[in-house]
Amino acid sequence: MLPGSYRAAGLVEDAALVRAMLDVEVAWARVLGTEVSLGSWEPSLDPVEVEAAGNPVLPLVSALRERVTGTVHTGLTSQDVLDTALMVLARRVLGRVSGDLRLVGSALARLAGEHRSSVMAGRTLTQFAVPITFGLKAARWLVGVLDVLDELDVVSRTLPVQCGGAAGTLSKAASVVDPIAAAAQFADHLGLVWPGLPWHTYRAPVTKLGDALVRTCDALGVMAADLLTLGRPEIGEVREGAVAGRGGSSTMPHKRNPVLSVLVNSAALQAPQLGAQLHLCSARAVDERPDGAWHAEWPALRALLELTVVAASQAAELVEGLEVHADVMARRAADAAGELLAERGGGTDPASYLGAAESFVDEVLKRWEAR
Amino acid sequence: MLPGSYRAAGLVEDAALVRAMLDVEVAWARVLGTEVSLGSWEPSLDPVEVEAAGNPVLPLVSALRERVTGTVHTGLTSQDVLDTALMVLARRVLGRVSGDLRLVGSALARLAGEHRSSVMAGRTLTQFAVPITFGLKAARWLVGVLDVLDELDVVSRTLPVQCGGAAGTLSKAASVVDPIAAAAQFADHLGLVWPGLPWHTYRAPVTKLGDALVRTCDALGVMAADLLTLGRPEIGEVREGAVAGRGGSSTMPHKRNPVLSVLVNSAALQAPQLGAQLHLCSARAVDERPDGAWHAEWPALRALLELTVVAASQAAELVEGLEVHADVMARRAADAAGELLAERGGGTDPASYLGAAESFVDEVLKRWEAR
Amino acid sequence: MLPGSYRAAGLVEDAALVRAMLDVEVAWARVLGTEVSLGSWEPSLDPVEVEAAGNPVLPLVSALRERVTGTVHTGLTSQDVLDTALMVLARRVLGRVSGDLRLVGSALARLAGEHRSSVMAGRTLTQFAVPITFGLKAARWLVGVLDVLDELDVVSRTLPVQCGGAAGTLSKAASVVDPIAAAAQFADHLGLVWPGLPWHTYRAPVTKLGDALVRTCDALGVMAADLLTLGRPEIGEVREGAVAGRGGSSTMPHKRNPVLSVLVNSAALQAPQLGAQLHLCSARAVDERPDGAWHAEWPALRALLELTVVAASQAAELVEGLEVHADVMARRAADAAGELLAERGGGTDPASYLGAAESFVDEVLKRWEAR
Amino acid sequence: MLPGSYRAAGLVEDAALVRAMLDVEVAWARVLGTEVSLGSWEPSLDPVEVEAAGNPVLPLVSALRERVTGTVHTGLTSQDVLDTALMVLARRVLGRVSGDLRLVGSALARLAGEHRSSVMAGRTLTQFAVPITFGLKAARWLVGVLDVLDELDVVSRTLPVQCGGAAGTLSKAASVVDPIAAAAQFADHLGLVWPGLPWHTYRAPVTKLGDALVRTCDALGVMAADLLTLGRPEIGEVREGAVAGRGGSSTMPHKRNPVLSVLVNSAALQAPQLGAQLHLCSARAVDERPDGAWHAEWPALRALLELTVVAASQAAELVEGLEVHADVMARRAADAAGELLAERGGGTDPASYLGAAESFVDEVLKRWEAR
Repeated sequence: MLPGSYRAAGLVEDAALVRAMLDVEVAWARVLGTEVSLGSWEPSLDPVEVEAAGNPVLPLVSALRERVTGTVHTGLTSQDVLDTALMVLARRVLGRVSGDLRLVGSALARLAGEHRSSVMAGRTLTQFAVPITFGLKAARWLVGVLDVLDELDVVSRTLPVQCGGAAGTLSKAASVVDPIAAAAQFADHLGLVWPGLPWHTYRAPVTKLGDALVRTCDALGVMAADLLTLGRPEIGEVREGAVAGRGGSSTMPHKRNPVLSVLVNSAALQAPQLGAQLHLCSARAVDERPDGAWHAEWPALRALLELTVVAASQAAELVEGLEVHADVMARRAADAAGELLAERGGGTDPASYLGAAESFVDEVLKRWEAR
Repeated sequence: MLPGSYRAAGLVEDAALVRAMLDVEVAWARVLGTEVSLGSWEPSLDPVEVEAAGNPVLPLVSALRERVTGTVHTGLTSQDVLDTALMVLARRVLGRVSGDLRLVGSALARLAGEHRSSVMAGRTLTQFAVPITFGLKAARWLVGVLDVLDELDVVSRTLPVQCGGAAGTLSKAASVVDPIAAAAQFADHLGLVWPGLPWHTYRAPVTKLGDALVRTCDALGVMAADLLTLGRPEIGEVREGAVAGRGGSSTMPHKRNPVLSVLVNSAALQAPQLGAQLHLCSARAVDERPDGAWHAEWPALRALLELTVVAASQAAELVEGLEVHADVMARRAADAAGELLAERGGGTDPASYLGAAESFVDEVLKRWEAR
Repeated sequence: MLPGSYRAAGLVEDAALVRAMLDVEVAWARVLGTEVSLGSWEPSLDPVEVEAAGNPVLPLVSALRERVTGTVHTGLTSQDVLDTALMVLARRVLGRVSGDLRLVGSALARLAGEHRSSVMAGRTLTQFAVPITFGLKAARWLVGVLDVLDELDVVSRTLPVQCGGAAGTLSKAASVVDPIAAAAQFADHLGLVWPGLPWHTYRAPVTKLGDALVRTCDALGVMAADLLTLGRPEIGEVREGAVAGRGGSSTMPHKRNPVLSVLVNSAALQAPQLGAQLHLCSARAVDERPDGAWHAEWPALRALLELTVVAASQAAELVEGLEVHADVMARRAADAAGELLAERGGGTDPASYLGAAESFVDEVLKRWEAR
Repeated sequence: MLPGSYRAAGLVEDAALVRAMLDVEVAWARVLGTEVSLGSWEPSLDPVEVEAAGNPVLPLVSALRERVTGTVHTGLTSQDVLDTALMVLARRVLGRVSGDLRLVGSALARLAGEHRSSVMAGRTLTQFAVPITFGLKAARWLVGVLDVLDELDVVSRTLPVQCGGAAGTLSKAASVVDPIAAAAQFADHLGLVWPGLPWHTYRAPVTKLGDALVRTCDALGVMAADLLTLGRPEIGEVREGAVAGRGGSSTMPHKRNPVLSVLVNSAALQAPQLGAQLHLCSARAVDERPDGAWHAEWPALRALLELTVVAASQAAELVEGLEVHADVMARRAADAAGELLAERGGGTDPASYLGAAESFVDEVLKRWEAR
């Protein structure tokens, strides 16, 4: 019921996680020589058993063992299954986020090009500074998008399978297969990477994923926050595109709220705490598998994945539909020329004092095109 | 699917929130002179409309207006309904949490009394310090419980209705009713408090609730963390009670994991970030209703409510079933007497160097009984 | 060198903490029957010894023992001294913060009264909503101030001494004095409260203090954020008072930055994380004294004390000097009447649609006067 | 006075920041054609002026202009100077941290090799699981170190100069020099990177630095937390090396506290919140330069730099001096063989059930040697 969560449908909710866990079990069963076909089976897990086990894996394995013949799960521990399933979800989420970020990027590149020279007031500490162009603003947002696209690519290509068994030695697996070859095959079946050893207590794979997601929300959030300011009625330099039925108020029929900007902004206010949660869990990943820090990690990771995929999708729609009022920008800059040109010592034409603004736009567009 | 979330069934999930929002609309309708009976109606809200409105209230009101005759919702804004509904949920959650904390408290009081003089090693910075008693340890945990019980009582008795209309002036309501009398009636119908004015942008009611919930998790978490240490096999001074099927491992048949302690500990690692989220939203509650900070608040509040109600319930079961091995404690203290009594300058009987430990136990038990 | 830290001079820096630790040792020495007079002695502590001890207390006690004759420190542990010294600092800080909040409150009460009926546009989700008055806005900020004043009073009156000895049993103290009477005297000498038992691992005294400080920053921060918006040149409804030399830019001679608002806003962006840090430390306060969580608490508490005392002082100056442009407000509201009165169905006079705005102002002013 | 802060002497304190700001001004002056020699000049900045300007740059520039002839600062804004100075500090800190991490890595590699086959109990959720070796444990910690060494290298090589002028257009600079060539020269003089455009509101350079620092603390913290557990007297499998005068207690003469582990653990409990602070500031870096988010960033970044450099130095000493009691590990594993081998179905020799443990050690050592 959270605004926009439908955009993440099928990606992170309980049913998606269960399905991913089944994919993981099937892949491992294949490594063990068991071919499993589950069709569209949707096991229902008893929540009391989930709690009794501390996680959903044990009940899932019990259900699975009743359904299939042949060896399944042997050699894995719960954390292997759940960590890997989360990486499976993460890969899908990153694919979707990257797709939406490319849309955001394209739209920003278009805006940066179109408004390369559209003069507007620069604002610092809320007050008028020197002139800029709207193209420069769009280009700066685009730098953030370019940057996280690269980072998400790297993260996505290195998402690891978890494969360690009870205490990270693959002891049980080693009694039935060559454990390291098995881990590599396991990764292969799932399209993930075998990092050479388990990471039950080495959580950088999770924090790097998390940091990249938070940085994505940062990049989108700062854009949303800027758009909210520029879209204030007293400023009116941009406006969220009109969509029938969106942005209405329950009391004021005339109102058109900048809903997408508000929601993206809201995501960016939430992501940092979720990222901190992941780091804290990483710092407390004690023993061979920890006594609470792992359990505190999944909810934060799932929440962060959902938040980001929703925000990226909303941001794409937001930027693609954005109305830019270059005339308002120009008029305001002209009216405020006295202040905007004070640094130079005076003047009346803000367009004559843009410094390297347009070169910066070109620089960013070159990067975008080179992608 | 989170371990233990069934313990919060009916309290915070989407359906519960929708029901609470309907209760709120019904109460306000009554203020407006419309008697509404909804039976067990469960409206289903279109997620695209929820996002378009930025929150679920507008679609809910549309559905409601199709269903009932008479004036409904008039004078309220979305935030009035959602804030109030969350307070309705909070009241139920606080009732449940307090009930479970009383169980925790009773069990701890019993343990503190029984083990008032059960000597054990005191440990500081992980090393042996001077002797204490297990009763003192239990009493210290009990202080935390006593304290949050009081705090939750205060918070629970002051949970406010939100009633401000579009911009906190009750402008629309004032055109049909006496707005302030109406707000007071509204509170009455719902068993909440009318705080004298709206709190759309004054979020202390939320942060105080949040801080109390985090403090509850702190108090339970430090107990769980201590129990995890004392229950390590090398220490073996306590053990989580055995429950058929709980604490098993997916690979190691012999294992009995301290699942409840792990989960309570895990909750305590999550709560601080959620509390910070609420404060951040409070600090950013700008204008007459904010542009994202409010939207970032509900998920954190709901997550924190769920986390706390589950942790309190788990903690009750944990403490009630706890096995205390006073013999192991005594033996270890005797063996370590050289170190435990070094402060005094030597000796062999740790029980002879307990300082005010037992008085402190009595002090806490007196407080518990006075409750 | 942080902007405004001079406003906290003498309150929380290293020298202040050392002095407070000495006050604590002197008070305890008095309990032990040793009268100590230290004059203006400023011991210098070897940082290598501070680290070796894990905290500054042991080196301080060594220096003290070289200087005075008679028994000192006996019966206390490092944490007793440092926790108590921090409470001594907290009491001074709270006194100062409360004083500044009263100034903020007075100025806001004046503004609320003066502008009880000064019509302005209400804004929600950044867009025009219905009319409000500036008095209502000031009154809402004042509610936050009133509320934290009360909370700080309670916290301030209950700041506890820490007195537990090595493992919270007062074992060593008990060998030389009546430990509980001694703890009570200790509190008396310092003007703090003896809470009946030690709180080495029960950190609610710290988190309650922290939460109150964060809530103070929330209350001031939301006001600062609002003022930053209203003071944007395109809005121009308020302006920070001019002070010679303040708010200048290193490049733009004409500029007058709203420096105080920026700094208060900045404090409010920092406080939530510091509060979370305190709660996390509370949840990890294991054993009889913990293995890192206590050490992670002081820096956060000191940072939060400094942040709050500086922000409150800046806020007082900010509100006292605030320029309110009621004419701009009125003109804008008139110009936007079409939108501001859409809820009512039209009209041209925003002042005719204020709902309960003025009653709400009166309600808050009544509370302020009743203080 | 914080334990261990002397290890960061000269790197991040106020004087170091002032010196770095002067280095930055000198480098820029050189770009402008002014050769400045400041010798050991230490300007003292009036704290009231620092606050009036909102940051220390303006007072510094005033002092500088009184001292030198020739053009200085022209074309830069305060944020250019402070951001760049922080990057100068960061580069030094990263150099120091990397050096210490290499010491940690060497010591861990030695331990991993020596104890490749030293059997010990594996522990999961605090309970005995299957056997591992201490070499595997050391190797897992080493993976974390290897990983952050690589990350810090990348971050260190890409630390950027900030160079944008009032609103990120280099407008003023462009009136006296070729702005983009000047920015590149500026970077050259300082040994930093010119990233092609300013990053006043694009804060990924700061969050990437921050995330890498937090990840460093995570990696060291999990090791410290493990060592604290293994060094509990009931477990006794490791012990912090003895150093005269370290780890003493103010009350218990016999005690040897694991001070370095405690302090490193403490750092890891603090870093996540500081990292979150940086991300939050990044998400709020609005307009051309923001109204508080930037001011909230420096304290967090400086605190995080100091925390990490101190923790890395402490960790190096900790690991180099670590006492490993392989005999205790072996004895315990033998005693617990019944539990440790339950997964296999029984047995008495834990060394016979190590799975891939030793291969994993070899894998990590190979990586270390390949570095």
